Amino acid sequence: MESFILADWLQQRLDAEAGEPAYRQLYRLIRRVILDGRLTAGARLPSSRNLAVDLAIARNTVIQVYEQLAIEGYVNAATGRGTHVADLSQDLIDDPLDKASGETGTQAQPLNRGLSKRGQHLMDRLGFSNRQIGAFMPGIPDVSEFPLKAWVRIQNKQWRRAAPALMSYAPAGGYEPLRQAISEYLSSARSVNSTARQVVMTTGIHQAIDVATRLLCQVGDVVWIEEPSYWGVRNLVLSSGLKAVPISVDQEGMCPTAADFATPPRLIVVTPSHQYPLGMVMSLARRRMLLEYARQNGCWIIEDDYDSEFRFGSRPLPSLQGLDDAGLVLYAGSFSKTLFPGLRVGYLVVPDGLAEAFSGAVAELYREGQLMTQSVLAEFIREGYLTSHIRRVRNLYAGRRTCLIGAIAGRYGDALDIVGEHAGLHLVLALPDYVDDHRVTREAFEAGVVVRPLSNYYLKAGSAKKGLLLGYAGVPVDEIGPAFNILSRVIDAQLLRV
Amino acid sequence: MESFILADWLQQRLDAEAGEPAYRQLYRLIRRVILDGRLTAGARLPSSRNLAVDLAIARNTVIQVYEQLAIEGYVNAATGRGTHVADLSQDLIDDPLDKASGETGTQAQPLNRGLSKRGQHLMDRLGFSNRQIGAFMPGIPDVSEFPLKAWVRIQNKQWRRAAPALMSYAPAGGYEPLRQAISEYLSSARSVNSTARQVVMTTGIHQAIDVATRLLCQVGDVVWIEEPSYWGVRNLVLSSGLKAVPISVDQEGMCPTAADFATPPRLIVVTPSHQYPLGMVMSLARRRMLLEYARQNGCWIIEDDYDSEFRFGSRPLPSLQGLDDAGLVLYAGSFSKTLFPGLRVGYLVVPDGLAEAFSGAVAELYREGQLMTQSVLAEFIREGYLTSHIRRVRNLYAGRRTCLIGAIAGRYGDALDIVGEHAGLHLVLALPDYVDDHRVTREAFEAGVVVRPLSNYYLKAGSAKKGLLLGYAGVPVDEIGPAFNILSRVIDAQLLRV
Repeated sequence: MESFILADWLQQRLDAEAGEPAYRQLYRLIRRVILDGRLTAGARLPSSRNLAVDLAIARNTVIQVYEQLAIEGYVNAATGRGTHVADLSQDLIDDPLDKASGETGTQAQPLNRGLSKRGQHLMDRLGFSNRQIGAFMPGIPDVSEFPLKAWVRIQNKQWRRAAPALMSYAPAGGYEPLRQAISEYLSSARSVNSTARQVVMTTGIHQAIDVATRLLCQVGDVVWIEEPSYWGVRNLVLSSGLKAVPISVDQEGMCPTAADFATPPRLIVVTPSHQYPLGMVMSLARRRMLLEYARQNGCWIIEDDYDSEFRFGSRPLPSLQGLDDAGLVLYAGSFSKTLFPGLRVGYLVVPDGLAEAFSGAVAELYREGQLMTQSVLAEFIREGYLTSHIRRVRNLYAGRRTCLIGAIAGRYGDALDIVGEHAGLHLVLALPDYVDDHRVTREAFEAGVVVRPLSNYYLKAGSAKKGLLLGYAGVPVDEIGPAFNILSRVIDAQLLRV
Repeated sequence: MESFILADWLQQRLDAEAGEPAYRQLYRLIRRVILDGRLTAGARLPSSRNLAVDLAIARNTVIQVYEQLAIEGYVNAATGRGTHVADLSQDLIDDPLDKASGETGTQAQPLNRGLSKRGQHLMDRLGFSNRQIGAFMPGIPDVSEFPLKAWVRIQNKQWRRAAPALMSYAPAGGYEPLRQAISEYLSSARSVNSTARQVVMTTGIHQAIDVATRLLCQVGDVVWIEEPSYWGVRNLVLSSGLKAVPISVDQEGMCPTAADFATPPRLIVVTPSHQYPLGMVMSLARRRMLLEYARQNGCWIIEDDYDSEFRFGSRPLPSLQGLDDAGLVLYAGSFSKTLFPGLRVGYLVVPDGLAEAFSGAVAELYREGQLMTQSVLAEFIREGYLTSHIRRVRNLYAGRRTCLIGAIAGRYGDALDIVGEHAGLHLVLALPDYVDDHRVTREAFEAGVVVRPLSNYYLKAGSAKKGLLLGYAGVPVDEIGPAFNILSRVIDAQLLRV
């Protein structure tokens, strides 16, 4: 903070009349500016002599406060180099509560406040990005193609006659006409068997996973996730105190080993229609095997069907839920890929026996609302805009995909593999194992191109394959070539000459 | 399901050509209709003779399937009384996984799938209601007073020029201009010290509590909550695997005993401005005590400031956050009470040192969006509608409050106490300990009046006081008298004559 002058700030706050000794006031105030980040790690404090003069207090008081702060780890003092603010981030990582045991008196307050271990763990593995638009951000549809005019027209119509009940908290399950519309849409588009009662409105896949783990799992239960898998689900599961067990995938999708089978999980999270991020489709044999294993071992399955609307060439396979006779599959989807991510409307289709519990739990745990948005969406679907929009952008994305594949093939021929190119909003450009795909990602970002490193999607770093996720859905055809040229220069610098 | 005929349904699905034995098919299909709830507890299955004739299969096959289902607990068979669907809800409660150990072979599949213990626990304690509007639903503002025209106008303006970045996932922290507007509003209205960087957008208090527990607490950590307290926070904390410890409140607010102090919690959740649901204001001495205790013991504090804008007569006390020199208070608020609940926009003001972690965690865990809504709200605030709306409805609610107090006093004089009437959107009508306030609530609901039982807000049923929460904010003056007449007849039937 270049404009922050400690002496001025202290001068305005030290109060000779306050009754609190100057030592105590000064200690408290300096500690505060360090803790709240106005003085950051490495910042140099004024010399004790200068600060004493500026504040018109005894120099010994300042020295005493600096020493106390040094003992407690807020500052580092080295003779001749002055007093500098310490790096407190390390304290947050080495569970500061453990240090509290060394406390000796009320004067020496240890810094025993910070993130929990799971909080720090989450911070160390963040997957989200603040950059959402541009070549080749994966997982984002082209929101500029969204039929905004139709949406605004319907939105106006619904809001002008907004009933008070639609402006309050949502009832269990969400807006009934939207649940009905989704049940019908999923029946025809995805062969999902459901009634409106089984469709529980959520804000997206994350909330669907969260409510399912809270209702179906105890803390500590085993959850199977695919390896690799979507970072969001992985980090959410880990942050919820569940034991995430990574299960490898092969060309037929999730592929548990005999060792995996030996410890049945409570919950299995899969992306059978389009494995995320590698893109394979789970074979029918594998689907039947997984359903039978789950049936015999009391497991629940969450089918994350995040983008199956975008399959190029072939028809999408019907959902896993549609094959499920035993009522053990929960089907999760959202409008983030088909319409736009910022909408935050998703759904979870649960077995009928769970409908009441899931509807109630979403209302209870998240205190949802957004009924006006849900009513706009219901009308938008009723007027046919959802299906016509999907049809239109599917063709658009197919053209962009072809263009990107052409650019890759033109540059690398058969030297680098393209994985998972038959569906979805992204493909994976495989890289040799010796390439650091995180480094490629960083350098591409600096050059203005956003990609994601494939190795980031693995729970076990040791088994991670290297590659780049390239999203093409949001990139106009005439930007694909130039952006790929930039990216390929970054990649080339990492490839060994052979 | 009156229209469900099992034999017809089975006839359409049994397939002689399928390769799967008739026994196996029949078993699977009947089990499915029981599990998914089409046949509910107590429903009688057709006799084996009739079903065999209808399906043109051997009667022995049907008998064999019925026996298998009985062994596995799906049906009960008693000679002469026929075969009835069993009550499976009991299995869900007695952790069905425990029963799995009795499994003897693949034929005898136990029903080892159901809600987890914490899921069932949550279901047993649901606090939400599908009824949101009408006398005397507490906690809901009068949404019909919301300046809808101004909102729709601004909404149109913002949507017509919707930038693609506003339609994708939200960046860490949310929409920057809204964070700035909230920081300024809280500074003047609630004496909250913050920069925009410290304001993290959430969907409401629930999400604020959830992210705080994930970042600051380990599973199993102790969290202090007030006794009584808001059911939503209590159930969320319990569902997250934390240990909720109820701390009594007295006239000065949360009042820990020596025994409570002996085990410092990791997190303290308080409503200092207006205790929920009893309505007292935490005294300055108690605030200082709580801050000092938290400072010395490494606790974090969440200040839930859900409705402090509505204080009648006196000025609201400044926030606890404004008193906090040590950077240990997280201040949570929302627009649910000031604007409308369905909006789902809230905020968490965190110490500067936590700003980056909390912004990132919200983006990561919930994958938020709703930037368009946030941009509409930012403009709504900028044009002055938030403050003018609060000023207007505060007067309106004050009139309704006076009217309700008059109706109570007119009926009961000093016989029943009114608690917490100086602020907020509800008051508490105290009832004698011998009255079952759940029963009053049920009977009032049947008579068309919504209230909430005070005892429901206590974690420990034994110490629960009896009473009714009566919301007045959403009830026009001319409806208050008639609704209270209905309610008082229900109450009178429970009061002993003295």
